[in-house]
Amino acid sequence: MGENRMMSLGALVAARDAGKASPELMVALCRDAIARKDTAIRAFSHVAAEPAIAFDGPLAGVAVGVKDIFDSFDQPTSYGSPVYAGHRPLADAAIVDLARRQGATIIGKTATTEFAYFQPADTVNPHNPAHTPGGSSSGSAAAVAAGMVPVAIGTQTGGSVIRPAAFCGVAGYKPSFRLLPATGMKHFAPSLDTVGLFAASISDVALFANLLTGRDLTVEPVEPAQIRVGLYRCAELGSADSEMQDALSAAADRAADAGFDVGEIEEPAALTEAREAHSIIQDHEAGLACGPDLSRFRDQLSPRLVEVIEGGQAISPQAYDQARRLAKRGRAAAKLMFGEVDILLSPSAPGAAPHGLESTGDPRFNKLWTLMGGPTVNIPGFRSKQGLPLGIQAIARFGRDRQVLSVAAALEPLFSRSPHDRDPQ
Amino acid sequence: MGENRMMSLGALVAARDAGKASPELMVALCRDAIARKDTAIRAFSHVAAEPAIAFDGPLAGVAVGVKDIFDSFDQPTSYGSPVYAGHRPLADAAIVDLARRQGATIIGKTATTEFAYFQPADTVNPHNPAHTPGGSSSGSAAAVAAGMVPVAIGTQTGGSVIRPAAFCGVAGYKPSFRLLPATGMKHFAPSLDTVGLFAASISDVALFANLLTGRDLTVEPVEPAQIRVGLYRCAELGSADSEMQDALSAAADRAADAGFDVGEIEEPAALTEAREAHSIIQDHEAGLACGPDLSRFRDQLSPRLVEVIEGGQAISPQAYDQARRLAKRGRAAAKLMFGEVDILLSPSAPGAAPHGLESTGDPRFNKLWTLMGGPTVNIPGFRSKQGLPLGIQAIARFGRDRQVLSVAAALEPLFSRSPHDRDPQ
Repeated sequence: MGENRMMSLGALVAARDAGKASPELMVALCRDAIARKDTAIRAFSHVAAEPAIAFDGPLAGVAVGVKDIFDSFDQPTSYGSPVYAGHRPLADAAIVDLARRQGATIIGKTATTEFAYFQPADTVNPHNPAHTPGGSSSGSAAAVAAGMVPVAIGTQTGGSVIRPAAFCGVAGYKPSFRLLPATGMKHFAPSLDTVGLFAASISDVALFANLLTGRDLTVEPVEPAQIRVGLYRCAELGSADSEMQDALSAAADRAADAGFDVGEIEEPAALTEAREAHSIIQDHEAGLACGPDLSRFRDQLSPRLVEVIEGGQAISPQAYDQARRLAKRGRAAAKLMFGEVDILLSPSAPGAAPHGLESTGDPRFNKLWTLMGGPTVNIPGFRSKQGLPLGIQAIARFGRDRQVLSVAAALEPLFSRSPHDRDPQ
Repeated sequence: MGENRMMSLGALVAARDAGKASPELMVALCRDAIARKDTAIRAFSHVAAEPAIAFDGPLAGVAVGVKDIFDSFDQPTSYGSPVYAGHRPLADAAIVDLARRQGATIIGKTATTEFAYFQPADTVNPHNPAHTPGGSSSGSAAAVAAGMVPVAIGTQTGGSVIRPAAFCGVAGYKPSFRLLPATGMKHFAPSLDTVGLFAASISDVALFANLLTGRDLTVEPVEPAQIRVGLYRCAELGSADSEMQDALSAAADRAADAGFDVGEIEEPAALTEAREAHSIIQDHEAGLACGPDLSRFRDQLSPRLVEVIEGGQAISPQAYDQARRLAKRGRAAAKLMFGEVDILLSPSAPGAAPHGLESTGDPRFNKLWTLMGGPTVNIPGFRSKQGLPLGIQAIARFGRDRQVLSVAAALEPLFSRSPHDRDPQ
């Protein structure tokens, strides 16, 4: 799939800063790529007709795909739902405004599942159009994977950044909770809804986070012997595909070969319990946050969305409070665990992207970490026997975003040397 | 001011349940009161022309005033700003939908300062129209105080529930963070924005919270000797008016006379520091959350709103992170402190409502507790020499909402027996 060569943010920005690529040219490259490719991929729900191009700012000339769960004043915002078809918010979401203030061009809105839940968009996986790209940030991951934009913005409430990044073979970064602003997104479960980023490589996604926020997030060299890496034996691990279990073992082996201090970490019981609490918290909050849509637009919502909102409304406040207590205990256990280990490795998903477009896959390996609130990164590189990407997730404690990005960047080239690996070009 | 006799939610619901008042009559009473009084008070930015009345549900017949910072699909939603004049959201805010699902009638939108910051609405204080009603939930507090509705909904980011409740002499309740859903409000600082409630008395506001959420929040009898009450000697206490200092001392004395286990609590240094961190957190988040409005509508925003958004955008992520760490340390110190005391008493505001309408007063006694996230209640009862209400704030640890409401309800009649007190009728 030579046409899917990804665009590197780092290379584009370097070319721009060296005077070799103007912002107009950079945006034109993306517009051309979208015109050539998106009929097949369907990553975009809307492409800007005449996108504004800035000539100043760290993201000048950088075309960003924005998940259509975020408000944008100049482009329709539909939240993946016919209820909001053609909706034009008065103002941008905070992250869209921030990107524009840094010079970015909002080149289009990327396809999302309905309200970022499970009813799929019609985006396909750029590695094989018979397979799901994952979700809910389906279009953001696919747009980067197909080489239409260098970067994209998404959200994760269960596994909606890390899983599509894994299925599409791109770098995905779910930052520490509230590192990026969520105001102006269509909320599903506000205590979980986390804004995340996509790019071609870990160093690119870190650079994007840095240029967007001004935070020290670019990857830096790591001293492997100083980094304690834990192969995380979570309760769900046995349910992963054998290919994924092999990939995770290979990931740990290669990290050890490279000098990282690798061991195995058993899952604390409090974290197993916290994972179970995720759905109660999510669904109860969705019952409130999406209740207004159920009240007014029930007939225009998918049956599975109606079911989760109604189910959430049936969860008692007492059950919700108990789930929040389990989450709090889980965070205390995670804090203790991260005294013994710096980075955990875990599957990003149970396996490669499933066949078919009716499901976006399963967030069982992601939802605990959304609830815990610390940073996670999808590291691409491994491949299934079918040639589909297999993602490995790196996880760190709250606030250690730069460390997890830097370690992930060091691991990324090691993972690409898989026996099953095929050159993506 | 006999015309300002307040409406009791408990009495209305009891009359309804006894078949003595129909939902139509209950709503009609409020519509009549609004028609007679609101020309002078200006509590409502919009009154529903033909409000829907439900005949089922725990809040059937209960007319609710909703701060115009919350979206409502059937009434204009302006966020106190000319930018959004006449704006019609597609769906309700979550709390509005929840109230409707419980049977409430959304009788109108109550006046708010611009984006719930400091640029005042034109609402006046029902106790003296030359004085501010406080803000930012100005209309919600004034509508209850003037006897136009039994209950109202507001928000607090600094002191926007407790302060107007104090200035207007009503019960105000800022619940534990996320006890009430904030989705669909115009966010200012999402990690602080807290939905709160107003009613004529503490038992009424507790009943409102109970009927709205189904949580066990109605007040229950307390055993005073079992309740450790602390007069909280915070760093700001010396800056309160002498009348307020006297009222706080009287509050502690009367609590002790009634058998409560009363002592003084010095403010831990970590809490003084956390209070200072509030503005950095608030302003940085406002720089992001309101950045889209600054980018598009700068000329239509007040100078003080422009100033806070621009100032917030100038706060570095590093300074924000440091402020969040101070907040976290403060929460740990608060947790320790609440091992030694159950309920703190503190001023709700530096004094009575200031003269003039150009300022809504000062949140210095509120913002720490918004940041800490636990429940606080304004207890009305004391009066200034001028006859204006002086509010005392009861504060408890996160999750102890029922306890703080119950203790506040026990203290409320004691506070009304002030030497300066005048019968409100």
